[in-house]
Amino acid sequence: MLSKSKAKYIQSLGQKKHRDEEGRFVAEGPKIVEELIQSVPGMIEEIYALTEWIETNHHDQLLLPIEEVTPSELQRISQLKTSNQVLAVLRKLHLDATPVVNDRLTLVLDTVQDPGNLGTIIRIADWFGVMQIICSHDCADVYNPKVVQASMGSVARVQVIYEDLPAWLERHHDVPVYAMMLDGKEIDSIGKIEEGLIIIGNESKGISEEVARYATEKITITGKGKAESLNAAIATGIVLSKLV
Amino acid sequence: MLSKSKAKYIQSLGQKKHRDEEGRFVAEGPKIVEELIQSVPGMIEEIYALTEWIETNHHDQLLLPIEEVTPSELQRISQLKTSNQVLAVLRKLHLDATPVVNDRLTLVLDTVQDPGNLGTIIRIADWFGVMQIICSHDCADVYNPKVVQASMGSVARVQVIYEDLPAWLERHHDVPVYAMMLDGKEIDSIGKIEEGLIIIGNESKGISEEVARYATEKITITGKGKAESLNAAIATGIVLSKLV
Repeated sequence: MLSKSKAKYIQSLGQKKHRDEEGRFVAEGPKIVEELIQSVPGMIEEIYALTEWIETNHHDQLLLPIEEVTPSELQRISQLKTSNQVLAVLRKLHLDATPVVNDRLTLVLDTVQDPGNLGTIIRIADWFGVMQIICSHDCADVYNPKVVQASMGSVARVQVIYEDLPAWLERHHDVPVYAMMLDGKEIDSIGKIEEGLIIIGNESKGISEEVARYATEKITITGKGKAESLNAAIATGIVLSKLV
Repeated sequence: MLSKSKAKYIQSLGQKKHRDEEGRFVAEGPKIVEELIQSVPGMIEEIYALTEWIETNHHDQLLLPIEEVTPSELQRISQLKTSNQVLAVLRKLHLDATPVVNDRLTLVLDTVQDPGNLGTIIRIADWFGVMQIICSHDCADVYNPKVVQASMGSVARVQVIYEDLPAWLERHHDVPVYAMMLDGKEIDSIGKIEEGLIIIGNESKGISEEVARYATEKITITGKGKAESLNAAIATGIVLSKLV
């Protein structure tokens, strides 16, 4: 049986403050938990699962710490409206990562605050083989349950590192710096690139001035219709598909 | 004061059954309502707004039917967790639209069930000037509040038409039919196109067999990393950015 204090502890991980204090985060649902078991089994602290999940997923040989719970117990610790078979508590990843910017592409996110957008961007980066993302401190928290959910497990593979962007760029702009902006060169004229930083800004405010001044090339995705803007994740998908 | 029966009527439009019966739908928040006022003022049946919205948005000359409501009244009729200044009830759009497939690009969606994805795809289509979308009957409802929200007003400009896809394709495959599939030609080898259908499938199941057999060209977006799939909206963004 799930103890009250444990339930309270897991619920508390819905808040950034507690995730930071505990160095833990939560992932939910069979698809994501399975991806995390495959990618980072050592980071899993505990799995809370319904009988049906335990019976259909034979992870006995991995010696995972699995606690069987009832549907109502799972719902009590879930961040989802409707809990989904399994919930895992994990230790945070990439804590000691030091980004290397040479000979590779790095995404730089300036104030991407929507958790769904951040999670989707992590997924897209993984798809295109961009394995590190630098976020400004006011981006969504990579361990927010909605980010983990939207990344569909890619959060285990892509390094997401939080930095003070202007200070970080000051130290790392010895490679080309591409910035997605409204007044840039049409993206089709850029061609493929193999090294550099690609900066994506906030959907409504774009890239802040202190960050934009490090751009060596401004890039624009030209639309034909009347829509005012593209979602930050869609813009990232288009940019990486054209440049990688 | 908002009457009980009116509040009940507006709440009921959260369900497809009632939207279909009434031929009405709901849009919320200043950004979307403003776009709808600009694009389709004649389709607005009623606007329910807080004093602050009415005072900062001077639409007196449009003779819009605006009813002032209190924050608690607005919250009662809102589909959002936290209501946002203004809610509009509109007559459904494009009801009599007949799609024309020659000399233009048309998106065809096979079982895109997530409302956020459908709304984002409508937004992307608008951005790239693709002004009609054919949906299978099991796609999300274009008048679902989450679709309207994610489309950010593009729902007023892009025609979304529901059809039985195999039957419809049988009548309209006299133009090239591109299908996004896993085993297709790399998208970069296709080049720009000006006419045809572009079929996007369900994220987990892809395009159904009965639909796929109409494809004249199968297209793939190749990834380098380990992520298994791209979100349907991201795939659409990439495809349109490469083909349009």
